[in-house]
Amino acid sequence: MMKHTKLLITKTLILSLTLFLTACASNKSTVDPMPSWNEGSSKQRIVEFVSSVTDTNSADFVPQGKRIATFDNDGTLWSEKPTYFQLMFILDRIKIMASEHPEWKTTQPFQAVLENDMAAVKAAGEHGLLEMAMATHSGMTTDEFEVIVKDWLATARHPATGEAYNAMVYQPMLELLDYLRANGFKVFIVSGGGMEFMRPWTEAVYGIPPDQVVGSSIETQYELRDGKPVLVRLPELHFIDDNVTKPVAINRFIGQRPILAGGNSDGDFEMLKWTTAGNGKRLGLIVHHTDAKREWAYDRESSEGRLVRGLDEADKNGWLLVDMANDWNVIYPYESRN
Amino acid sequence: MMKHTKLLITKTLILSLTLFLTACASNKSTVDPMPSWNEGSSKQRIVEFVSSVTDTNSADFVPQGKRIATFDNDGTLWSEKPTYFQLMFILDRIKIMASEHPEWKTTQPFQAVLENDMAAVKAAGEHGLLEMAMATHSGMTTDEFEVIVKDWLATARHPATGEAYNAMVYQPMLELLDYLRANGFKVFIVSGGGMEFMRPWTEAVYGIPPDQVVGSSIETQYELRDGKPVLVRLPELHFIDDNVTKPVAINRFIGQRPILAGGNSDGDFEMLKWTTAGNGKRLGLIVHHTDAKREWAYDRESSEGRLVRGLDEADKNGWLLVDMANDWNVIYPYESRN
Repeated sequence: MMKHTKLLITKTLILSLTLFLTACASNKSTVDPMPSWNEGSSKQRIVEFVSSVTDTNSADFVPQGKRIATFDNDGTLWSEKPTYFQLMFILDRIKIMASEHPEWKTTQPFQAVLENDMAAVKAAGEHGLLEMAMATHSGMTTDEFEVIVKDWLATARHPATGEAYNAMVYQPMLELLDYLRANGFKVFIVSGGGMEFMRPWTEAVYGIPPDQVVGSSIETQYELRDGKPVLVRLPELHFIDDNVTKPVAINRFIGQRPILAGGNSDGDFEMLKWTTAGNGKRLGLIVHHTDAKREWAYDRESSEGRLVRGLDEADKNGWLLVDMANDWNVIYPYESRN
Repeated sequence: MMKHTKLLITKTLILSLTLFLTACASNKSTVDPMPSWNEGSSKQRIVEFVSSVTDTNSADFVPQGKRIATFDNDGTLWSEKPTYFQLMFILDRIKIMASEHPEWKTTQPFQAVLENDMAAVKAAGEHGLLEMAMATHSGMTTDEFEVIVKDWLATARHPATGEAYNAMVYQPMLELLDYLRANGFKVFIVSGGGMEFMRPWTEAVYGIPPDQVVGSSIETQYELRDGKPVLVRLPELHFIDDNVTKPVAINRFIGQRPILAGGNSDGDFEMLKWTTAGNGKRLGLIVHHTDAKREWAYDRESSEGRLVRGLDEADKNGWLLVDMANDWNVIYPYESRN
C-alpha cells in the first residue's frame, strides 16, 4: 500500500508537472507578445529573427550571453518633437535658474530662452546649445542632478499632448524590449542623449537598468566635501555618442557587437552598419516616422531625427524600415486610457 | 470519483512541491557557499552583510536592482606578482613583434625587454610603460586584439607557478562572486587594467560578462575597410581607471553607487570610500596579501598593489581587511588538482 501510494504520488506529480509545463508552453505560443504591432512583414521579420537566433537546432542560433540588442532613445523609444526632450529640460532649467543669473537677461542664447524666442534659440546653433547644456547640466553633484531630472519629469508636461515626457514612449517598442528580454536578450540604450539625463527613469519606463544605458556625457570629478566624497559635474564635454562614435561607445561600454540594433536617424547609421556587418544572422531596424496624425511625420528635412542615408541605404543593407503609421496599432501606452 | 481524483492530484501536487521547495530551502542553509573561507570574523562579516541586505524584514534591506558590487582585478581577483600580468603580456608581445621592429634592438625601453634586463625596463618608468603599452595594444582592430589576448592566455605560463595566468585567480573570491550573484547582486570589475585585456576571458573565469568589466582604455576609431566597418585601436590613452577616477568610472559605466566594493591597493581607496560613504549598510573589503608561502606577502613597500592608506585607514572607515594567510584555506582553484 505504502509503495503503491508513493508510486501514485510520483506519477501524479509527473503528470501534473507535464500538464503544467505543456500549458505554459502552449500559452507562450498563443499569447501575442507584441499586440501593438499589426500583423505584417515587419512584425513577421522580427519574430522570425528572434525565433531563429534562439532555436538551438537552427544554424543561426546565438548563445544567450551574445544576444545583445542596442536601441537609440530619441525618436526610437520616445518622441523627439517639437524638439529633443532633453532640450525642453534645458529650456525649463534656464527659466528656473534665471533668478540666480541676472546676466542672462541680456546674454544670448539665454535671453532668447527667457523671451521664448525659439527662432533665436535655434539660431544660436551647436555652440549655443552646448553653452546652455553646460549651464544647466554642470556645477552640481551627480546625486543632485539625479534629483533635478526626477523632479522635472514629475512636473513638466509636453506642450502638445499635456503628458509627462516619459509617458510619450512607444508602446510597440516597449513590447519589443520585453519580447527580446523574454528570449534571453540583454537590451541596451545607445543614445546621443545624456546618460545621466536618461538613467534616473529608464529602469521604471523601459526595464533598462542604469548600467545598460550608454549615451553622451560630461566630465565629473571626485571631491571630498566635509570629509564625504562627491562627484561634481564639470562644464566640460567627455563624449558625444553619435554616428561614428556609437560603435566606439558600444565597444567601450558593452564590449560585444550587438546582433540587433534599432534607431531612427542617420545618427544611428554606423551603429546599424556595425551591428549588421557582424557574422551570423543580424537585424537592423529603423523606426520611420510616418504618422502625422498620432505622432509626427518627418525624415529627410527634419532637424531632429534627420533620416537620409538610412532611407537611401536601408534596402542595400537589408535593414527593416518600420512604418509607424501602418505597422503600429498603438503609439503611446496612455492611448488605452481613453 | 472524478472529483475525488482531481482533489487527490491537486493535494499530492501541492504536497510534493512543498516537500521539494522545503528540501531546496534547507539545502541552501546547510551547504556552505564559501568553503574556501575559514570560519572566522571575516567570513562572518561577509555573510552577515549579505544576509541583512537581502532580508526583506531587515532595516538594511536593499532591492535587487541596487545590489551592485564592484571588484578590482589585479591583486584582488587574480595575482599580480612578479608584476602585473598585463605587463607580462606586453613583454611577451614585444619579443614576438621584435622581428618587425629592428629599431627596438637599440631603442629603450624595448632593448631592455629584448635583453631581459628587468631593472632597465623598470627604470624606464611610467613613460616607458606607456610607450610599450601603446606599441603592443594599438594598431590593430578590436577583433584582432581579442584574438591576440586569447592566444597569449592559451599559451603563456607564469614564471613561478608554470600555470596559465588566468588560472591564478583566487578560489575564495570566485566563491564570493558566486555567493553574491546567488543573492541577487550584479557584480562588476573596476580595474586599473585594460578593459579589452580583461574582457576576452572574464566571463569564462569569473562569470562576469564583458559589459560588466570597467577598466582603463585607449581610443578607438570607426573605419570602413573594403566596405566593412572596423574599430581601430589608436596609440592614445582614453581613460586611466585608478584611485580618484574609479568612482568617476563607476558613475559613468554603472550609474549607481555600489553597496559592496573589494580591492587590495591604494588604487582602490577612493572606490571603497565612495562605496561605503553611501546611505544604508555598505561593505568595503581589502584583500591583504599576507601569505608568502602560498602566494606573495606585500603591502606598504610593493610597486604592485601598494597598500598604505588602506591599511592605516581601514579601521576608521570600517573596512574589512581580509587576511589571505588566515582567512583562506585555498588560494588557487588548481590546488585541488594536487
